[in-house]
Amino acid sequence: MDATTRIERALAASIAWAGGLDCPPLLAKAVRHAVFPKGSRVRPRLCLAVASACGASNPAIVDGAAVAIELLHCASLVHDDLPCFDDAQTRRGRPSVHAAFGEPLAVLAGDALIVLAFETVARTAASAPAAMAGLLLTVGRAGGMPYGIAAGQAWECEPAVDLAHYHRAKTGALFIAAAAAGAIAAGADADPWRDFGDRLGQAYQVADDIRDAAGSPEDIGKPIHQDAVHGRPSAVTRLGVFGAVSWLEQLVAEAAAAIPACHGAGDLRCLIASEAKRLLPKELSLRAA
Amino acid sequence: MDATTRIERALAASIAWAGGLDCPPLLAKAVRHAVFPKGSRVRPRLCLAVASACGASNPAIVDGAAVAIELLHCASLVHDDLPCFDDAQTRRGRPSVHAAFGEPLAVLAGDALIVLAFETVARTAASAPAAMAGLLLTVGRAGGMPYGIAAGQAWECEPAVDLAHYHRAKTGALFIAAAAAGAIAAGADADPWRDFGDRLGQAYQVADDIRDAAGSPEDIGKPIHQDAVHGRPSAVTRLGVFGAVSWLEQLVAEAAAAIPACHGAGDLRCLIASEAKRLLPKELSLRAA
Repeated sequence: MDATTRIERALAASIAWAGGLDCPPLLAKAVRHAVFPKGSRVRPRLCLAVASACGASNPAIVDGAAVAIELLHCASLVHDDLPCFDDAQTRRGRPSVHAAFGEPLAVLAGDALIVLAFETVARTAASAPAAMAGLLLTVGRAGGMPYGIAAGQAWECEPAVDLAHYHRAKTGALFIAAAAAGAIAAGADADPWRDFGDRLGQAYQVADDIRDAAGSPEDIGKPIHQDAVHGRPSAVTRLGVFGAVSWLEQLVAEAAAAIPACHGAGDLRCLIASEAKRLLPKELSLRAA
Repeated sequence: MDATTRIERALAASIAWAGGLDCPPLLAKAVRHAVFPKGSRVRPRLCLAVASACGASNPAIVDGAAVAIELLHCASLVHDDLPCFDDAQTRRGRPSVHAAFGEPLAVLAGDALIVLAFETVARTAASAPAAMAGLLLTVGRAGGMPYGIAAGQAWECEPAVDLAHYHRAKTGALFIAAAAAGAIAAGADADPWRDFGDRLGQAYQVADDIRDAAGSPEDIGKPIHQDAVHGRPSAVTRLGVFGAVSWLEQLVAEAAAAIPACHGAGDLRCLIASEAKRLLPKELSLRAA
């Protein structure tokens, strides 16, 4: 089974477990709307790729870790789109959750997704207690405070922003967690993988800045020029489009160099090179990886 | 150390762990504002009381479970107070989180508190993996969907509400979880404790309805008559004030009768009798428990 199919199935199983007959029907629909149809799934694919590179033998634990990361990501998108933040009416080319279901259900869908992320780890890793504790702390660190996505978003509310903290928490945290969780789910040491995840997270943030500045709404499935509208820090504002592309290339090369010795290192290097190409607007080419 | 001091210290430790120097300062302040100064702490005290009745020997695990329950509760209050729900400007006699810090930080503080609830269990129960998995699933069930507080609040968004599901999810879930988590943290079987927690949760909901209808804002630290304003189901609307008090008495008696055989059953019966008295407006007396 390819990684994409595997992730979609694992996400569907997790949501079916929580959103069954006893669930308020609109909440179940809002949660499904937040998670399907698929986004890029770049974080859970990273988790699976690292687990595979580390020789993982228990697919249920790996899937649970990947699902937890993606559910946290989906939760953050739902809450980021709320009127009090970006007030985005569309996401992935369709109405955002609050546009489709109203603000109350969007708040609750985000909350329920955060809870479900942890429940999924607790259910799928029950047979491997050491991995379970490590995965929970890794997922928690990526989601909450002081270093996770809630903290990342909260830096936008501060009068003075520490840019490094901001980016690492808002975007980097889930990439670091995805790489670390893949290693933990495979029974490997997570520490050498965090630097790899960190570079990839930075690369993804730069690619996102480039798409916001130089992509089209059809291409990226959401409104463009949001960084300028909301006065957010952006690699394009700082370096220009081509400077940003060049920085992206460097970060991808650094990520490739940061891959620890493991039996699947070669495959992983190929994967991140092709991912990096996919993330850029079609008109911009990427030379290296 | 008495239960209240113990809970306040454990909550402070958990929040200090997450809200340190690297945390966006306003988020850390908003989270502290949501948790301190203390509310009734009725749920974590229930958790500690059940753990003690079951002869718990590992206070760190018990404290972690109690903290997780209270953090979920605080998160739900912060989100319930948001303009898109109750739009409450005060809570516990002071500005609500969104009134004090704005809506974005209120959303994020709630999110961070949910994450911190799970992190606290993962940190404190790492030495007892079997308890950890049970606690996480218990806390998750109480917080998310289909049976937890997110689902409970979401029933308010449905055109047709199943009242039993609504009350059990919105209020009962955390009481059931508090009782079950106390048992699990003590290494005891949680199942016999869920019925006890369920009756107490129902009793608490009825007491809350009574205070909303017959209390004063100074007494209860929040606006009164909210059930009538928002057209919410209430035991007082259905039974009148004295009918509701009588029903509360019956539920407390049923909870006392549902306490499983354990060495601390007598103390626990006394505790819930005194708690029930404390929950009513001063003018209304409670005859039995």
